[in-house]
Amino acid sequence: MELTVYLAGQIHDDWRQELKELASTQGLPVQFTGPMENHDRSDNIGEEILGEQPSPVYKDEAASQLNNLRTRVLLEKSDVVIALFGENYKQWNSAMDAATAVALGKPLILIRPPQLHHPLKELSEKAQVTVETPEQALQSLAYIFA
Amino acid sequence: MELTVYLAGQIHDDWRQELKELASTQGLPVQFTGPMENHDRSDNIGEEILGEQPSPVYKDEAASQLNNLRTRVLLEKSDVVIALFGENYKQWNSAMDAATAVALGKPLILIRPPQLHHPLKELSEKAQVTVETPEQALQSLAYIFA
Amino acid sequence: MELTVYLAGQIHDDWRQELKELASTQGLPVQFTGPMENHDRSDNIGEEILGEQPSPVYKDEAASQLNNLRTRVLLEKSDVVIALFGENYKQWNSAMDAATAVALGKPLILIRPPQLHHPLKELSEKAQVTVETPEQALQSLAYIFA
Amino acid sequence: MELTVYLAGQIHDDWRQELKELASTQGLPVQFTGPMENHDRSDNIGEEILGEQPSPVYKDEAASQLNNLRTRVLLEKSDVVIALFGENYKQWNSAMDAATAVALGKPLILIRPPQLHHPLKELSEKAQVTVETPEQALQSLAYIFA
Amino acid sequence: MELTVYLAGQIHDDWRQELKELASTQGLPVQFTGPMENHDRSDNIGEEILGEQPSPVYKDEAASQLNNLRTRVLLEKSDVVIALFGENYKQWNSAMDAATAVALGKPLILIRPPQLHHPLKELSEKAQVTVETPEQALQSLAYIFA
Amino acid sequence: MELTVYLAGQIHDDWRQELKELASTQGLPVQFTGPMENHDRSDNIGEEILGEQPSPVYKDEAASQLNNLRTRVLLEKSDVVIALFGENYKQWNSAMDAATAVALGKPLILIRPPQLHHPLKELSEKAQVTVETPEQALQSLAYIFA
Amino acid sequence: MELTVYLAGQIHDDWRQELKELASTQGLPVQFTGPMENHDRSDNIGEEILGEQPSPVYKDEAASQLNNLRTRVLLEKSDVVIALFGENYKQWNSAMDAATAVALGKPLILIRPPQLHHPLKELSEKAQVTVETPEQALQSLAYIFA
Amino acid sequence: MELTVYLAGQIHDDWRQELKELASTQGLPVQFTGPMENHDRSDNIGEEILGEQPSPVYKDEAASQLNNLRTRVLLEKSDVVIALFGENYKQWNSAMDAATAVALGKPLILIRPPQLHHPLKELSEKAQVTVETPEQALQSLAYIFA
Repeated sequence: MELTVYLAGQIHDDWRQELKELASTQGLPVQFTGPMENHDRSDNIGEEILGEQPSPVYKDEAASQLNNLRTRVLLEKSDVVIALFGENYKQWNSAMDAATAVALGKPLILIRPPQLHHPLKELSEKAQVTVETPEQALQSLAYIFA
Repeated sequence: MELTVYLAGQIHDDWRQELKELASTQGLPVQFTGPMENHDRSDNIGEEILGEQPSPVYKDEAASQLNNLRTRVLLEKSDVVIALFGENYKQWNSAMDAATAVALGKPLILIRPPQLHHPLKELSEKAQVTVETPEQALQSLAYIFA
Repeated sequence: MELTVYLAGQIHDDWRQELKELASTQGLPVQFTGPMENHDRSDNIGEEILGEQPSPVYKDEAASQLNNLRTRVLLEKSDVVIALFGENYKQWNSAMDAATAVALGKPLILIRPPQLHHPLKELSEKAQVTVETPEQALQSLAYIFA
Repeated sequence: MELTVYLAGQIHDDWRQELKELASTQGLPVQFTGPMENHDRSDNIGEEILGEQPSPVYKDEAASQLNNLRTRVLLEKSDVVIALFGENYKQWNSAMDAATAVALGKPLILIRPPQLHHPLKELSEKAQVTVETPEQALQSLAYIFA
Repeated sequence: MELTVYLAGQIHDDWRQELKELASTQGLPVQFTGPMENHDRSDNIGEEILGEQPSPVYKDEAASQLNNLRTRVLLEKSDVVIALFGENYKQWNSAMDAATAVALGKPLILIRPPQLHHPLKELSEKAQVTVETPEQALQSLAYIFA
Repeated sequence: MELTVYLAGQIHDDWRQELKELASTQGLPVQFTGPMENHDRSDNIGEEILGEQPSPVYKDEAASQLNNLRTRVLLEKSDVVIALFGENYKQWNSAMDAATAVALGKPLILIRPPQLHHPLKELSEKAQVTVETPEQALQSLAYIFA
Repeated sequence: MELTVYLAGQIHDDWRQELKELASTQGLPVQFTGPMENHDRSDNIGEEILGEQPSPVYKDEAASQLNNLRTRVLLEKSDVVIALFGENYKQWNSAMDAATAVALGKPLILIRPPQLHHPLKELSEKAQVTVETPEQALQSLAYIFA
Repeated sequence: MELTVYLAGQIHDDWRQELKELASTQGLPVQFTGPMENHDRSDNIGEEILGEQPSPVYKDEAASQLNNLRTRVLLEKSDVVIALFGENYKQWNSAMDAATAVALGKPLILIRPPQLHHPLKELSEKAQVTVETPEQALQSLAYIFA
């Protein structure tokens, strides 16, 4: 049995890399997917494909269509979703992806630092498991195969 | 035909009241529901029902169970969801409720000021309609009955 | 038992009126809904609610969001969908609404003149019933209550 | 991860071939399916299998059963649907397949020339992404794997 | 609470009448629906609405479209399905309606004389309850309200 | 808005009565349903309807068909399920009904004394809310209408 | 792309063998499944596994549980269902399997001799394709891969 | 065709091993999964991953999140569920997993000793097949491939 795991959440540090290496070290049969991690490309993908747009608003609209296409296909293909929230940024896409995962019936592993406990309490309660570090999320995945 | 509309989003101003009065003035057959608007009661509902909890974390956990029970029942009963985002607060519950609405197949009307266009671009693209004021959201509802 | 029936299809003649009067004459417990029949309002509804848009393309985009909101809510509420195709216009919205009805599991009654038999053969085969006149569609509805 | 993509839309030019070659050049792990592209065979398949039918109407009915069997199986097997609309023909099957894809929850990439913007505005708004050329559709697919 | 119950099965005797009178005597809040019981009208409904058809085969095809429209709408509206099998006729429509009810998640009460036990054993095993007389089926319904 | 609430769980004391009276006192628009509370009738309902069975095993089988018919119809009709576990009996039907509610997407309020915390920990974690007394369950329901 | 096809219907002649050989000759990537074709084993499988039962009725009940387990798993795994009706026997299991396939959203290819047209008209109308011989059914399958 | 079978139920003896060996001996293409069989690890997994918890209640809560994650992913991946009940323990997790399997549409094979017939009669009636020994459950599986 192999699992596909979508890694939602912030793209400003290397937490996905850390998680993938741990999985690889342990030999877990897991395939990881996630959002476009190149932030500039994610913002520009609309114009990259459709050409210049008449204003920043329409540039954003075009980009969001492509980013949502990507997320939607990959979320549908996943067995488990892991979402990491950090202390910076509004992270509405992370909240949106996490809630979509729950509503699609995909089990959600939520990673958040203890100080975000209060604002994330309702989302945490919807998650299957809430942990504080990527390493703990990986241990949770490993337990499925134990 | 009557519609039930869930009003997700911030509970710190009186936008829901404004919307309800407009609907009433126009005689629209719409029933509105929404989250607990008394912020303190929303934070304390866990201890109000289950008694004192061992720590703030567990107080929050208890409260979030009750708040999610409420949201879940009311979201299921709704035909349309309207979600308002403002410029303050993280509003993760709003993002969560909006995404859940989309994933459940409920049409979403998103209200957000123009300056939040960029961080909400993916959610906006998932919404059925995006507007800037509660009054425009109400006009959108009215168009269904036109 | 009462049924809600969505009347998809062209808005350029008065076939809906004919059908409603027949139902009323026979005392059938049917409630009819349908698209915005005022063609200009349907084209302008985006700007009516959101204000002037930067170009005809964006005016159309805004209008289509509102028209789709309306159709979606009303289709979900319907028990049966009747779609009429005539000999003029491309009628892509009619084809779209008819196919959506089938995919949502709503039984479809297709009305089309005999000369459109060939181009509509695949859609006809997906419909529950194919007839040639609104009066025959109404008789089909009446048979459910017979 | 491999994706299966159904190519709906007109069968009178070689746009599918163009798209497949681009995918092959880029080494994308995509398997393409689509309707019967031999137009005569598509019209005659009913009689080819069931023998001569009593009239053109029944010949069409038999053919449409087989064409719908084919489309239905292949649509169900697909992860993404791409639909191309051109300036000729009524293209009701294309509209039907595109709307079915949306209603089944398959993300839709719509290809249409700018001059078809207005009549396709509601379908475009339902699509995940709208582009103008097969090459742009392919770039959208490629972005999922980026 | 009120239940809607579809009465599938043979239309050649008055078992439905017996069941309805028992329900009425006991004051059960049940609304009954069922197939067209006028056998001739059921066979002729296609030509009644669409006019004369070119052959008996096409007359049957037209009629079956209308009969299936009726059954489909009424089955969807039902909370429970009761299907009666007797010793005569092939009763394929009864088997079809009963199996459809099970597959749609509607609880099925099967009525059949003991001597049909063997050929109906697989269907009986899929039913929620199997009884031998309409009166026993009615008692089963009554137990829901007990 | 009115809610229908199924009261699963032991039938050996009067907790349902207590809960109904509290709801009535508070004027909550809730309709309660639940299993047959007359334990002897629940065990004998198979023979009551179908006549004497050849052995206790077949008597039980007949009874369980009727009890499951009742539970299934009422569970489907419910918006919320409340399940109470006490310290006696195996209560497998309670566990079955509670898990069915969760799997059907009905929010579950679990009532159990603190000393049953350990054996019910997995079920509790699946419930939307876990409380210790019927009164707390009623307060949770009331919060939905607050 | 490979398809799994369930062959429902009578087990008293070798039509399945004929169909499999045609598929093999044409090199179609199709895997066939179907009911237990050894009629005696199908009738005795309950006692074969569970030991002697107290009466023929209970022997049948036990067998039908096992036959339904088999059918259910294999139907769920299938992409297309082919059902053959002949002129003998009541064939209620065939009707049940065919209707279950339709209700599960599996496309159905119905094979029946012309003289069974009338009693099977409603089922035929629910099928995706109706043909008269196994060879025609195979050609229909082949068209999916054409 | 290969099947994945989840083995729910007690973890205090070696029935799973017996079943796996029988399957292996017969060369059945079946992959088995099941709950964590190391009882201590199952109770401690919350603290193993998340660190020490403030009390036994919270230790249990953390463990149950991880155990439910595991069960949920593996149940979703299964084609058939086998649940064994023995005479000791409350086995609420077994009842919960069995009922979840039924509600998810997974066929359930129930294994229970004859003396548990009465308390498990409603669950048995929901199962696809009820047997008394792991060997009989394996024979039932084998019949699917016969």
